[in-house]
Amino acid sequence: MLIDVMKKRASVRKYDKNKEVSEELLNALLEASARTQTMGNLQLYSVVVTRDDQMKEKLSPAHFNQPMVKGAPVVLTICADFNRTTEWCNNRKAVPGYDNFLSFMNAASDALLFTQTFSCLAEEAGLGVCYLGTTVYMPGQIVDVLNLPKLVMPVATLTVGWPDETPSLSDRLPVASFVHSETYKPYTPKSIDEFYTPKEQLPENQNFVEINKKETLAQVFTDIRYTKRDNEALSETFMQTLKKQGFIS
Amino acid sequence: MLIDVMKKRASVRKYDKNKEVSEELLNALLEASARTQTMGNLQLYSVVVTRDDQMKEKLSPAHFNQPMVKGAPVVLTICADFNRTTEWCNNRKAVPGYDNFLSFMNAASDALLFTQTFSCLAEEAGLGVCYLGTTVYMPGQIVDVLNLPKLVMPVATLTVGWPDETPSLSDRLPVASFVHSETYKPYTPKSIDEFYTPKEQLPENQNFVEINKKETLAQVFTDIRYTKRDNEALSETFMQTLKKQGFIS
Repeated sequence: MLIDVMKKRASVRKYDKNKEVSEELLNALLEASARTQTMGNLQLYSVVVTRDDQMKEKLSPAHFNQPMVKGAPVVLTICADFNRTTEWCNNRKAVPGYDNFLSFMNAASDALLFTQTFSCLAEEAGLGVCYLGTTVYMPGQIVDVLNLPKLVMPVATLTVGWPDETPSLSDRLPVASFVHSETYKPYTPKSIDEFYTPKEQLPENQNFVEINKKETLAQVFTDIRYTKRDNEALSETFMQTLKKQGFIS
Repeated sequence: MLIDVMKKRASVRKYDKNKEVSEELLNALLEASARTQTMGNLQLYSVVVTRDDQMKEKLSPAHFNQPMVKGAPVVLTICADFNRTTEWCNNRKAVPGYDNFLSFMNAASDALLFTQTFSCLAEEAGLGVCYLGTTVYMPGQIVDVLNLPKLVMPVATLTVGWPDETPSLSDRLPVASFVHSETYKPYTPKSIDEFYTPKEQLPENQNFVEINKKETLAQVFTDIRYTKRDNEALSETFMQTLKKQGFIS
């Protein structure tokens, strides 16, 4: 059952180098993932499978050289794709109108839902996966390496392999912190304390604050991991790539 | 096993009016869904649960009055949420910098991955769900109805209930049509024919073309369901709401 898998899942970053992920298993998981709901049944995504070492080497810098890219037997780059549908229209006397931002959002949604079904299915099959959020940081590099045409934009990357580690579960906020009944209930200093104090008191997070020489855990995020300056620069880069790929003008 | 569930799943639009979705089950599914990978373990999403009939009535127009909104016992609006994290930072002497487009993409990704885990878990539990793509069409209306503050943007809606129908499986493109090995392989008239002809020849799709008085199935999409004109207008609306919610300036 997926629910049992989810309750003990964690991202896996180290993979067994001697055990391959067969073409057969990978295709079976991709095929089942494609049962995911999709806009107008258009399946607005594509998946580029990287197995070749040289290709992993080329993708690696776009992911800040995180070792999973070169260490995983399989790297999947999942893309928002309106190119295939547009080509279909062009071949069927239909005039497509998908070179706009809404179409990007529609295709990105399809792609991300597909990605997560795949992730669940892969973990249920015993594989380990790691989601690389870096995909949206330097999408232009990925576009170049994978030869992505217009109306194709990378939105997610999964590294996949048989686990060579058993990572411990990371903490999560309580359900009450992210679920709102009927309307959105504003947070207060009191509710923030209630929801975040247990996380802040975890030894690993206290250690995280200490080694980064910060006063609070939140400062580790704002000052080091996800800074305003980086976010603004990367927003610009992302928009430029969206433009290059034809989703905005 | 999720893989068996996926192989026979279909979106469910009619729900048993006499069988409620208990608070206990819903919370168990939401809690397990929160094990989904998330950026920096920040869980950049929130979920607004609608059970109240008057609230469903108010949400309905934003979803083009699709009957699932009023017909489902539970409607979940899943939002990209950097408000909670920003409030946490504000309460912890940290200066947040998440009022930008990249942060929206990060939070939207978190929210959509969470949404799909929930969808898989709900279907595994025997519930029926329907994903409403209309969420990104008129997000401003949803923002108003649900009182969403700045840095919260609705990205997905699921209607949830016990199935009162057994919809037949919809077709899907073959794996070879959306999977590319190492680099993206351009489509050709020949490969488009190979991938799309079986879909076009299905009786339900031929009927779809006929009742819409079109020449090809692709024209039903370009001329009626997802037109350039609508896509461009809705792109504008989406951007305006992103601006109102503080993710772009």
